[in-house]
Amino acid sequence: MELSERITQITAGGSDGWDVFYRARRMVSEGHAISELTIGEHDIRTDPSILQAMDLSARDGHTGYAMVPGTDLLRDTVAARVQMRTGVPTTRHNVLITPGGQSALFAAHVAVCDPGDVGLYLDPYYATYPGTIRGVGAIARPVQTNAEDAFQPRSEQIETHADGAVSLLINTPNNPTGVVYSRKTIEDIADLCRRRDLWLISDEVYDTQVWQGEHVSPRALPGMAERTLVVGSMSKSHAMTGSRCGWVVGPEEVIAHLINLATHTTYGVPGFIQDAASFALNAGTGLEEDIAAPFRRRRALALETLAKQNIVGLVPAQGAMYLMLDIRATGHTGEEFANALLDTRAIAVMPGESFGQAAAGHVRVAMTVDDDRFATALKTLCEFAATLAGRRAAE
Amino acid sequence: MELSERITQITAGGSDGWDVFYRARRMVSEGHAISELTIGEHDIRTDPSILQAMDLSARDGHTGYAMVPGTDLLRDTVAARVQMRTGVPTTRHNVLITPGGQSALFAAHVAVCDPGDVGLYLDPYYATYPGTIRGVGAIARPVQTNAEDAFQPRSEQIETHADGAVSLLINTPNNPTGVVYSRKTIEDIADLCRRRDLWLISDEVYDTQVWQGEHVSPRALPGMAERTLVVGSMSKSHAMTGSRCGWVVGPEEVIAHLINLATHTTYGVPGFIQDAASFALNAGTGLEEDIAAPFRRRRALALETLAKQNIVGLVPAQGAMYLMLDIRATGHTGEEFANALLDTRAIAVMPGESFGQAAAGHVRVAMTVDDDRFATALKTLCEFAATLAGRRAAE
Repeated sequence: MELSERITQITAGGSDGWDVFYRARRMVSEGHAISELTIGEHDIRTDPSILQAMDLSARDGHTGYAMVPGTDLLRDTVAARVQMRTGVPTTRHNVLITPGGQSALFAAHVAVCDPGDVGLYLDPYYATYPGTIRGVGAIARPVQTNAEDAFQPRSEQIETHADGAVSLLINTPNNPTGVVYSRKTIEDIADLCRRRDLWLISDEVYDTQVWQGEHVSPRALPGMAERTLVVGSMSKSHAMTGSRCGWVVGPEEVIAHLINLATHTTYGVPGFIQDAASFALNAGTGLEEDIAAPFRRRRALALETLAKQNIVGLVPAQGAMYLMLDIRATGHTGEEFANALLDTRAIAVMPGESFGQAAAGHVRVAMTVDDDRFATALKTLCEFAATLAGRRAAE
Repeated sequence: MELSERITQITAGGSDGWDVFYRARRMVSEGHAISELTIGEHDIRTDPSILQAMDLSARDGHTGYAMVPGTDLLRDTVAARVQMRTGVPTTRHNVLITPGGQSALFAAHVAVCDPGDVGLYLDPYYATYPGTIRGVGAIARPVQTNAEDAFQPRSEQIETHADGAVSLLINTPNNPTGVVYSRKTIEDIADLCRRRDLWLISDEVYDTQVWQGEHVSPRALPGMAERTLVVGSMSKSHAMTGSRCGWVVGPEEVIAHLINLATHTTYGVPGFIQDAASFALNAGTGLEEDIAAPFRRRRALALETLAKQNIVGLVPAQGAMYLMLDIRATGHTGEEFANALLDTRAIAVMPGESFGQAAAGHVRVAMTVDDDRFATALKTLCEFAATLAGRRAAE
């Protein structure tokens, strides 16, 4: 009577670099005033109009089993949105509604990876990526991107790791780097996938948060709709993180099998939540622009502050709700810097090392506190970095 | 670029005996008046008081990420409920909240089955059982129970199939048979699990619907809490099928690993749904008794009707919202009978064959339409069976 090998190996064991996050949380719960710039959660709640749509749907009796693939309305709404953004014909038969983007990531990997297969992902990465691939019994193989390339992946670098791989997981706009992959990056990746016969799993949950450049969905590129599974979600675009409503968009045949999987894993998503999501997606772009606006503002504030100094570097802040700061000039690791910043300045940021090896010597700043507090925290962070760098120079 | 073998093999292929159900649904959508006694969904909706608790929680701001293992309140509430019912000390660390009972069934099998392991389940079975086991990459091995035993499983029969097995999935009160496993049955199964070192996955989602006898949770038996994973849910007890809120209760170590799995599969359950569930579970037993009452009434009506004839047999209707009727005296299979009943009498029931081999020559009747309609439908079903049996005798 033992646990399965698979479940015991989802996490690789050892410190995962999230100590700073948990320490900050503990300090907050003990009454300390900490500026938490750690996780990707908005500082606003779900809009009352969306909650009202949810309540109306529930009171109207949509509390029974919803159709497992999703309601026709939400599947149609997501399909129309994806078609509008990519130009690729998309119908409800290309859409599975899932209880959140994470569930969609898991389902997509179940669809394409058998136990022992290799699934590729790019470093730095969102915290759950390797565990998601291991969770389906596959081998999670990271491919480094480089700070010198502003973390834009190079397809030739990916190709050197592609032997035996069946899938590649990408994320643009990117968490944790805040980078938006360029059209050339996406075209090169698409070319690689076609050439090496890889499935492309494209996590696009930040696609409404683009500050610079354009979001290119690989589904829009020639020959890619048939081998791409796009993961989307209401979480970031509509501040509905807690509602757990996302989707996979892909070829009809894959979706048909994913519906079978859903029948045996989640058995659908609450109908009243799907009705709320349909309302939100059909409410026009104003709602999602309002939700993106604070991050756009805070990014501008950050650019101002960072321009006044030359110790802390900024990875091009093109999208998503994060800034990736290069603090290597201080002579410290991201983890050392984050711990010291928390202890001496009561500001919590995530060490770059929490997201793999590639972002060592960086820290990720989530722009998820109000503007004044954010601006002050960033200024303090820069001053702190300057102090460390000065101390280093004096040594 | 192929789909994973695992996902293509979740369903075994071929007709799964659910044609009658889908045909009835189609007829309803075309405007035909069909009495649908097919699936396990209440004919009432979630109580307004529960929906109000949900709305209040959402408006109070519980729309962000909830803790992945579940809210402290709901985990504590479920733990207290399980402890009260089993006498086994149970804390929140024994509880993982999941998006529904199906998700809990899947997670429990991931925890104990590696790819290629054998998971046992009992025939007749709830429709998703074999696919759930196959969905984790394991081999789903059925063990027949017998109509002559009123579908109470015999441990010696299970044991003849136990070679190489790591887990056994049971369900009491049982869907589809309506049988409640006796204390002796559960004790024998527990003994078998200890002897053969099997994990026991115990689906107890109908534990508030017991009409006769007592519900014995194997977690309550000596040496079983450490090897039993109990699956529970708000769906049946509180008419919250669409809210997708369930749980796994088990040893702390298993729950710790299941929390890892949840982080990489579902990432928690909406906080406002958990708050609604906590409200419902703490609202006293009146609420769940009210929800069980219609099935209790309809079962009594059925006993009356069935006592007046001797063609249709009744498997002891001890619990859950179903009756399993033995129609072998008509000379037809369950599938033939159900199809003819739908075509000639506009009544939809499920063929026993939809739930495996063991319930061939039976039909399952869900007691999920209002009392008058239910009584009339059952009377019509009996008359129809008598006609078929008479025709057979005349041949």
